[in-house]
Amino acid sequence: MPRSVTAFSNATVKRLRSLRDKKARRSEGLFLAEGLRIIAEARGSGRLPEIIAFSPAGAQHPLAADIIAETEATGGEAIETSPDILAKMSGKDNPQTVIAAYRQPDLSLERIDRSAAPLWIAVQALRDPGNIGTILRTGDAAGAGGLILIDECADPFSVEAVRASMGALFTQGIAAARWDEFIAWLRTGPGQLVGTSLKADHDYLDAEYQAPCFLLIGNEQQGLPADYEAACDLLVKIPMAGRADSLNAAMAAAVMAFQVKASWRG
Amino acid sequence: MPRSVTAFSNATVKRLRSLRDKKARRSEGLFLAEGLRIIAEARGSGRLPEIIAFSPAGAQHPLAADIIAETEATGGEAIETSPDILAKMSGKDNPQTVIAAYRQPDLSLERIDRSAAPLWIAVQALRDPGNIGTILRTGDAAGAGGLILIDECADPFSVEAVRASMGALFTQGIAAARWDEFIAWLRTGPGQLVGTSLKADHDYLDAEYQAPCFLLIGNEQQGLPADYEAACDLLVKIPMAGRADSLNAAMAAAVMAFQVKASWRG
Repeated sequence: MPRSVTAFSNATVKRLRSLRDKKARRSEGLFLAEGLRIIAEARGSGRLPEIIAFSPAGAQHPLAADIIAETEATGGEAIETSPDILAKMSGKDNPQTVIAAYRQPDLSLERIDRSAAPLWIAVQALRDPGNIGTILRTGDAAGAGGLILIDECADPFSVEAVRASMGALFTQGIAAARWDEFIAWLRTGPGQLVGTSLKADHDYLDAEYQAPCFLLIGNEQQGLPADYEAACDLLVKIPMAGRADSLNAAMAAAVMAFQVKASWRG
Repeated sequence: MPRSVTAFSNATVKRLRSLRDKKARRSEGLFLAEGLRIIAEARGSGRLPEIIAFSPAGAQHPLAADIIAETEATGGEAIETSPDILAKMSGKDNPQTVIAAYRQPDLSLERIDRSAAPLWIAVQALRDPGNIGTILRTGDAAGAGGLILIDECADPFSVEAVRASMGALFTQGIAAARWDEFIAWLRTGPGQLVGTSLKADHDYLDAEYQAPCFLLIGNEQQGLPADYEAACDLLVKIPMAGRADSLNAAMAAAVMAFQVKASWRG
């Protein structure tokens, strides 16, 4: 049976709340997901939380009740608490009625099975956690296998990234690596590395994409370093009509991912 | 010559600072843009600020110096101030070295010249100002003429929207209207209204788009109301491969806008 917790000073409350902070996420190896929609998505992907906190209203939803019971049955912790305390955990005035903490997956490249999907997205030095989450969601929609974070990127387990991913954090593979590690791993098997660059000659609509295709999206401000571009098998550009000089990184990822998919249609 | 202002209590400082608030933006008819990049984009589109504030470092850039001089020459106000005061205005610890206030344009539909561009984007009840700005930027990149905000949308002149637009707020036309006003205006001339819907039969890759094409993107949570969908000339769907059930609204706008453009290539 879930315990009822009403004190802000409760250790589990403090622990969940701490997960909004990157250092705590790293030392605990956990991350927060908020709301039944994402938590149900996680369960659909075979993932249950280690800790789940919910308001009385939250527990009334049959799906939430199932997930709470399953969490306890598999050795996790479930606490019933107040909307006030959920607000404190989430940092929002109108918190979700269910908040859960999940174990962070191992981010090593070796866990990525490139044959499992025709398309993968790799981002380099992406700074905005919202962009990371949005690209995960886009990858899910486009049928990508997952996201590879190259060099120093924003934390994919931050609250903003998890929120923007709308559950795709649980359906997409995720790995993190330095550039040299990524390239070494990539070249141990098949894989076309496709960079997007405003300096490229190939129009993205005319290019031939080969599975498994690894789309490489650069930093929001700088784009890809020149030597990273040089290591690509194909560099394409999305022609820009306007005066502002580029697409947002997440938009470029979406336009590219859907074009790669479109180009493979029979 | 620009005045030097060092007091937080200065009336111009307080006025600029107030523009982070929607009510003040509305009553003043002004909005804030931060950073030389956006302010230069505005000038490239023939727009000068009514008020410009800058740090000594900001004024050293020749382009900023030109814009400051032109602002004063056209009757605007220019103040030199400290990074501290700029931080207060922008609400950021590391403010830009130049911040400017611009007159909000008239948002009436009558100002939209549909023959000026083959593509227009319309969003309905979009709640996230970042999405509004991102879609403006995408429209600029895709060669759209502008953005039409239907029903109650987030403020396109909010700091978040201006920031996300990366200057496209100045290059794209913008209008706002209730749905019935929009439809009445649309039907006074040529225009294909294309809605995106997960319930549509037409795949977005197979559809025939006709200029001027008005892409209609619905609310982040609910999508388009059924009667709005029914009023569209064409409903298309972007097939989703994944388990999360949709694309982010800004992503859907980007994928659609670039596909419409691609479909028109010779």
